[in-house]
Amino acid sequence: MNKEPIEFYFDFSSPYAFLTSTWIDELAKKHDRFVKWTPIMLGVVFKTTGMKPLFHQPLRGDYGMLDFKRTARLLGVQAIVPKEFPYVSLMVSRAFYWLEKHDSERAVPFAKAVFRRYFLAGIAPTADVDLCALANEVGADVQALTAGVVDLEVKERLKMETQNASDKGVFGAPFVIVDAEPFWGNDRKDQIDAWLESGGW
Amino acid sequence: MNKEPIEFYFDFSSPYAFLTSTWIDELAKKHDRFVKWTPIMLGVVFKTTGMKPLFHQPLRGDYGMLDFKRTARLLGVQAIVPKEFPYVSLMVSRAFYWLEKHDSERAVPFAKAVFRRYFLAGIAPTADVDLCALANEVGADVQALTAGVVDLEVKERLKMETQNASDKGVFGAPFVIVDAEPFWGNDRKDQIDAWLESGGW
Repeated sequence: MNKEPIEFYFDFSSPYAFLTSTWIDELAKKHDRFVKWTPIMLGVVFKTTGMKPLFHQPLRGDYGMLDFKRTARLLGVQAIVPKEFPYVSLMVSRAFYWLEKHDSERAVPFAKAVFRRYFLAGIAPTADVDLCALANEVGADVQALTAGVVDLEVKERLKMETQNASDKGVFGAPFVIVDAEPFWGNDRKDQIDAWLESGGW
Repeated sequence: MNKEPIEFYFDFSSPYAFLTSTWIDELAKKHDRFVKWTPIMLGVVFKTTGMKPLFHQPLRGDYGMLDFKRTARLLGVQAIVPKEFPYVSLMVSRAFYWLEKHDSERAVPFAKAVFRRYFLAGIAPTADVDLCALANEVGADVQALTAGVVDLEVKERLKMETQNASDKGVFGAPFVIVDAEPFWGNDRKDQIDAWLESGGW
């Protein structure tokens, strides 16, 4: 059994990455694997590729909204696209890496709470009050986390992870890598499942 | 039972549209429906949306090639991306509409033969000799078809269908519309299947 982690790259403001966040751990567990959650700043990556986010493109943007909601309903998730869309996920991404280092058990629950806060409750988590609420929700040390997000080390870690992802060919979100095989998009769930089952085809 | 046709919009040079062409009729039949095949000139549509084809974008292009071949293998199709990619599908699109009007039974078999010639045999069907071979393959009148592709009426029809598709929000290929519900991409096969089964969710 290959125990290399499944790599899950995402920006906290990506709608389709939110959908993937609702099933990726369960899918990995089914195949006796675990997931390495890696938030990145997709805006930085887009500067490299010259891409615009799907939802900002003419025609495709409208379709993207429809498709996102339709796919969410099929997954049983009552997702919304908040009025403030997208948002700059810098603070919550740094908070994730602070937790990963200092309170690692809470990092993934925190990430899931961030996604839910935005795509279910419609609140863009960009203010200190959001960070407090999220820390409380997952039982993390509010004061330590609030101080932690401005650590130079955490800032550098986020930059490094974003660059590292870009170097690996990550150009969008969600982006999942299974044993070096790349899968882009929430809609590759079934292929990821099949790949984990068979090791490729 | 709703007998409105399933609308299938495509450019003959689109790899993912080729994949859809291998299953769309069978899926429709399963639900007692038929498919209206509508070739369009996607390059014209891209001028409207400012999009570049996926395969011409940095990083995403390489991934697209990998994903296309991987998805093809999963569908049991030994597809290739020809050296001459993409090609201008003007002649074969006009030929399709000529057949649809004058020899309608052969229009869809012709479309499938065009896709196979390019994505299986690797031959971009842009010359008269290709049109002859394709006409022979489906049993169409070679001379009449060769003359037909330069008919003004056929030229106008292709323009009209492309404009009509664009007006309906078609911005890429394959694009499938089921009872006014739009689905973009070969990877929406399962959703189209479910939508045809349930009428929506």
